[in-house]
Amino acid sequence: MITQSLPLSFRAIGAVCGISSRKNKKDIALIYSEKPCVSAGLFTTNLVKAAPVLVSEANIKNNIRAVLVNSGCANACTGKDGLNDAKYSIRILGRSLGIKPENILIASTGVIGARLPMINIEKGINILVKNIFRKSDDNGLSFAKAIMTTDTTHKTTVRKITIGGKTVTIWGAVKGSGMIHPNMATMLGFILTDAGISKNLLTKALRDSGKISFNSITVDGDTSTNDCVFALANGAQGSPGINKIDGNYKKFYKAFEEVMLGLAKMIARDGEGATKFINILVKAKTENDAKKIANTIATSPLVKTACFGNDPNWGRIIAAAGRAGVVFNPEKTSLVINGVKIFDKGRGIKENSLKAKEVMKKKDINIALDTGSGKNTASVYTCDFSYDYIKINAEYHT
Amino acid sequence: MITQSLPLSFRAIGAVCGISSRKNKKDIALIYSEKPCVSAGLFTTNLVKAAPVLVSEANIKNNIRAVLVNSGCANACTGKDGLNDAKYSIRILGRSLGIKPENILIASTGVIGARLPMINIEKGINILVKNIFRKSDDNGLSFAKAIMTTDTTHKTTVRKITIGGKTVTIWGAVKGSGMIHPNMATMLGFILTDAGISKNLLTKALRDSGKISFNSITVDGDTSTNDCVFALANGAQGSPGINKIDGNYKKFYKAFEEVMLGLAKMIARDGEGATKFINILVKAKTENDAKKIANTIATSPLVKTACFGNDPNWGRIIAAAGRAGVVFNPEKTSLVINGVKIFDKGRGIKENSLKAKEVMKKKDINIALDTGSGKNTASVYTCDFSYDYIKINAEYHT
Repeated sequence: MITQSLPLSFRAIGAVCGISSRKNKKDIALIYSEKPCVSAGLFTTNLVKAAPVLVSEANIKNNIRAVLVNSGCANACTGKDGLNDAKYSIRILGRSLGIKPENILIASTGVIGARLPMINIEKGINILVKNIFRKSDDNGLSFAKAIMTTDTTHKTTVRKITIGGKTVTIWGAVKGSGMIHPNMATMLGFILTDAGISKNLLTKALRDSGKISFNSITVDGDTSTNDCVFALANGAQGSPGINKIDGNYKKFYKAFEEVMLGLAKMIARDGEGATKFINILVKAKTENDAKKIANTIATSPLVKTACFGNDPNWGRIIAAAGRAGVVFNPEKTSLVINGVKIFDKGRGIKENSLKAKEVMKKKDINIALDTGSGKNTASVYTCDFSYDYIKINAEYHT
Repeated sequence: MITQSLPLSFRAIGAVCGISSRKNKKDIALIYSEKPCVSAGLFTTNLVKAAPVLVSEANIKNNIRAVLVNSGCANACTGKDGLNDAKYSIRILGRSLGIKPENILIASTGVIGARLPMINIEKGINILVKNIFRKSDDNGLSFAKAIMTTDTTHKTTVRKITIGGKTVTIWGAVKGSGMIHPNMATMLGFILTDAGISKNLLTKALRDSGKISFNSITVDGDTSTNDCVFALANGAQGSPGINKIDGNYKKFYKAFEEVMLGLAKMIARDGEGATKFINILVKAKTENDAKKIANTIATSPLVKTACFGNDPNWGRIIAAAGRAGVVFNPEKTSLVINGVKIFDKGRGIKENSLKAKEVMKKKDINIALDTGSGKNTASVYTCDFSYDYIKINAEYHT
């Protein structure tokens, strides 16, 4: 069992400052690095970008010393005022920490359209800065809790690898649960490492692993105005700097990818109202084709309700694949659910339908579709569609 | 009040033959024209096409005398056997009616993967042929009922116009309710007219009106393996033949479009589990941009659950628009729900939020989004996402 320890010279804590509508919910959080960090970021592709996204997109080019995060207010669709609020937040944080605002990233999640309550933010920053230098052994737990919104559980993971004789740590925390009380999906991710790595390679590692992790999960197909994943590397372990694609980079990347994929799967598993985790693996002519088909299956309300109902409904899966915009031959296609083949060469396999019903009762559903048109694969992770999904998203009133 | 009368020389009836799992549910239906019909068809774009779709796609080039429809079994994913079943069905129907099988169209809706029960089909054809020439004054009602599956109501509409002094009728029947017991969405539409019109222009009218009607509705984003809309014109009224785009064509098209749009809206309104009808109108730089945005809003589970919950959640609508893949400026965008402006120039309008909550309680929700980037519009029609949607689609077990 690996201790969930933060990488060397990183600190991460959370605090209560009263932004969240839930009483005593931690709602402001801070990551601080004693050394400047090489940084990389993935940002929402939504045309409507929240103020903190715009600020962090500008600052990601700099060395980073701190990340300020709040939950409860997304600071999205708040215009120039919202942008000023985000900038003012990192200015006062920088002043307290003795670092420049351009070396700080900021992320927000929560209600769209509401202004950041700056009195609470200032109060929160004071508490965070007072506590960040105290000895803490919660190893980022309070940070991970403070960034949560409708998440039912906090989400962190860690990997340790040896580079040039030094044990370096890659630690990650993430939040996201489909959509966020009360408006929509926000996914925030923070990956910290004490390994030394160039900005180019950290960016490459984040992009490459982002593609098969955070960009391969879906709860409801909605992309938030606030989605961000940040990677920070402070090199504090003094391990050999990773500056080219060599054995060390590959070792680092493997662990980095595991952290990213592990966190992404935690989000899909904790999707709003989810009772099941669904892993969709598609084999097709190209990786892009496979991803398109997997995505179409993963976002089909028909497939997701069938999983909720323990129904091995291959018709819905095949029909979703058929409308993905990819050419393949159904007569060469096979479909396996949790190890049971239920469709082959254009026809259902009746003999296996009882067995298929049995394996559909599992919490984890593995759907493997082979179009018979190639060997390239893609995986997409999602969850089922339950009454609670409707409840969570219909019963909240703005 | 216009009588829902069938166009001259058309007959349409339904019967019970035991395909449907519901006892005494009419499940086989026949349209017959005393004169050969000019015909046009729209077919599913799903790569996986059911056997009847393949047969009708081949026959649509011919003059048509009859259409055979069954509900309860989609005859999809049934391979060569299924194709033979479909061909055999129209062969025996043709023999009974004294017409060639290539002058018959066929459509099916229901369970995917199951073979057509040919004994029931033969029995059904016998009943239909026996009754089709009897005087009936149900004007297609039994036909419209026999094609239903999870529809909660039958759906027909009619328009009458005068062309060259003759009153011609355009009659339509449709079925569809999101997805079909037990597998998936099937939308079948039948438009009959006793006007005379060339095949080219009937095809043009069907395509043009299809774009803004049946291709502008969504219940869950799923495209069926069996979707078909057929238009048949038998010219029985002896009105002047419509052979070019002139005043008569425009008059005909207007009525034809009204029939198509009216039927399409009936489907959206009767979406599985629907409690509300949602009309999304988007104004953008191009019609294509507007349609993309409207579609993304219409398929967002977040928007649909908000409507179910009477929540004027503009954040979800704006965020859905933002991820539609269309460039527009949120700072120039405005959003009106049932006449109440709730978002303007990048910001929510707080003063109107109480009024907005009030109008969200209506059964019909009109969402109008103006991106401020042009005058081209597109409308998409859908329904809300309710507990019953989950119930209908999760609780059925194959």
